Amino acid sequence: MAANTSSIAPAPPLKDELDIIIPTIRNLDFLEMWRPFFQPYHLIIVQDGDPTKTIKVPPGFDYELYNRNDINKLLGPRASCISFKDSACRCFGYMVSKKKYIFTIDDDCFVANDPSGKAINALEQHIKNLLCPSTPYFFNTLYDPYREGADYVRGYPFSLREGAPTAISHGLWLNIPDYDAPTQLVKPLERNTRYVDTVLTIPKGTLFPMCGMNLAFDRDLIGPAMYFGLMGDGQPIGRYDDMWAGWCCKVICDHMGLGIKTGLPYIYHSKASNPFVNLRKEYKGIFWQEDIIPFFQNVVLPKECTTVQKCYIELSKQVKEKLSKVDPYFDKLADAMVTWIEAWDELNPAGASKANGKA
Amino acid sequence: MAANTSSIAPAPPLKDELDIIIPTIRNLDFLEMWRPFFQPYHLIIVQDGDPTKTIKVPPGFDYELYNRNDINKLLGPRASCISFKDSACRCFGYMVSKKKYIFTIDDDCFVANDPSGKAINALEQHIKNLLCPSTPYFFNTLYDPYREGADYVRGYPFSLREGAPTAISHGLWLNIPDYDAPTQLVKPLERNTRYVDTVLTIPKGTLFPMCGMNLAFDRDLIGPAMYFGLMGDGQPIGRYDDMWAGWCCKVICDHMGLGIKTGLPYIYHSKASNPFVNLRKEYKGIFWQEDIIPFFQNVVLPKECTTVQKCYIELSKQVKEKLSKVDPYFDKLADAMVTWIEAWDELNPAGASKANGKA
Repeated sequence: MAANTSSIAPAPPLKDELDIIIPTIRNLDFLEMWRPFFQPYHLIIVQDGDPTKTIKVPPGFDYELYNRNDINKLLGPRASCISFKDSACRCFGYMVSKKKYIFTIDDDCFVANDPSGKAINALEQHIKNLLCPSTPYFFNTLYDPYREGADYVRGYPFSLREGAPTAISHGLWLNIPDYDAPTQLVKPLERNTRYVDTVLTIPKGTLFPMCGMNLAFDRDLIGPAMYFGLMGDGQPIGRYDDMWAGWCCKVICDHMGLGIKTGLPYIYHSKASNPFVNLRKEYKGIFWQEDIIPFFQNVVLPKECTTVQKCYIELSKQVKEKLSKVDPYFDKLADAMVTWIEAWDELNPAGASKANGKA
Repeated sequence: MAANTSSIAPAPPLKDELDIIIPTIRNLDFLEMWRPFFQPYHLIIVQDGDPTKTIKVPPGFDYELYNRNDINKLLGPRASCISFKDSACRCFGYMVSKKKYIFTIDDDCFVANDPSGKAINALEQHIKNLLCPSTPYFFNTLYDPYREGADYVRGYPFSLREGAPTAISHGLWLNIPDYDAPTQLVKPLERNTRYVDTVLTIPKGTLFPMCGMNLAFDRDLIGPAMYFGLMGDGQPIGRYDDMWAGWCCKVICDHMGLGIKTGLPYIYHSKASNPFVNLRKEYKGIFWQEDIIPFFQNVVLPKECTTVQKCYIELSKQVKEKLSKVDPYFDKLADAMVTWIEAWDELNPAGASKANGKA
């Protein structure tokens, strides 16, 4: 684990309350491009591959770097729940962070411009999204009522205008859209050029495909459910890490009375991944998903699940019971979900007792 | 009832399948402004006030005009279900139309410009919305997957990509937003200047506030549920006509496997209505709404309800049973809902038998 403290005076809000988690950095331009926005914050880099390879971080950034050896040392046998050779390992960073807010971004995501040509400060928009309530109980046709120039429209019940605390802010991508391998193969040249100037709440009871490329969340509210599963080396599946986390988080947010927003901010996704490699990673998921989605649509968490940890353990039991028959992988995944919570609580003892209602 | 046939060659698609319904025309500029877009279509004007007053329609439009005397003559005692001195009377036009698609618009809504300055053909966008499927079962983060340059994103289950037939297209408003009286009073100067370039499906199980200012629907799919209730003259409430229709339509669409889209197209809403007058019309609704919304959130329609008419009659029974205790108004409204369906079926005998599964 390397460390380096920035000498630049930190300016933006929440400086001491937010960590930026990056699964790996293969591109030296990445941090240079984000420097004006990221430099005031602390970075946690979780190296997804060979620990003997060196990740170069340009001077001036305040960061920690964890490779596989660090993960093994810190978690011991519980390190088995953290994926290897896959960007899903980023969730280890969520666990070791001590901050309230997390922003995670892929190293092929650059600063996008808004339609006026201005560089978009993605982090600032995520913070705005997280700091104002969500509206999961009723749809507002003018979208986020907390944005300047907007409000709740006629017919929106007054008792529901308090909304719900926002746990997750899901940002989008210009240029290369986040398509699955079959869609990539069919539409190799499609680029997302449409800047949709909105943020909205995913309604209660509705699932969505959460992408980990450009994602922020409130670690205190939902952190223990932000597990990216078992992907990559030794696993039969890839590219479902963020999806799995999103489905788990959504049913837990719905149960706990928390909100999830999607829309702004955009980043510029520079590089399409190889659709043939993606197809190999995804193809089991394409089948399994047809059982996974009805499973999550029908999950009921009992009243006794009053913390995210309790919800997550209950969910792991239901995964084992109902999805293991789809494939033995889910039996292993259900065990890893439990290991993840054990590791989380070990590294976050205060949060664990608080989240478990003991404090 | 007056009639006049346009001599202009009709061009846009669906010319013979769409009627434009306007509750009244107080503003001579209204039709002139819309002429390039509306002239190829047939208009049905439902005069909302004094039948002795004359509504002037500029030459070149193909239209029918109905005043209260016409409604009374056509419906006899059943005319009681059609509101008087309120724009809710527009739903009479839905009933007398023989077309598959309806577009309804208020006479203070003008042609808006998109961010490039181009006049927006609202009708064309509504038709696009209605002709491609909705996605009520899972949220697509790039919004409408059927728009050019968009698609279903990674993680969207393939079995759900067929979507659902679109029954309703709910358009939005630039300039004066559709606020309730309290919000109008608090924010008299707020204007909606944000053009959000998207169309999205309201997910299954989620209610929304449907505004009648700029609305299109598939009459064959959902027409009999598009009843605008009892408002205006002799009624204790106003400005909840479109809301009521929206809530009824939403639960019926959810039950029948139909979709509702909101977003584009925008119109330019020119004139804020008087907030003091609005407060008088709305204030009972503001209280009642707190019971109405939980009612609609919990409505369950039995499997036997296989047509919109059957759903609507069942809904009227549940309104009588559960909302009459809120106010005797709902007892009257429940009866009017039955009368509406009787009148609809009388004027649409083929549709009635088809919709009731007899054909």
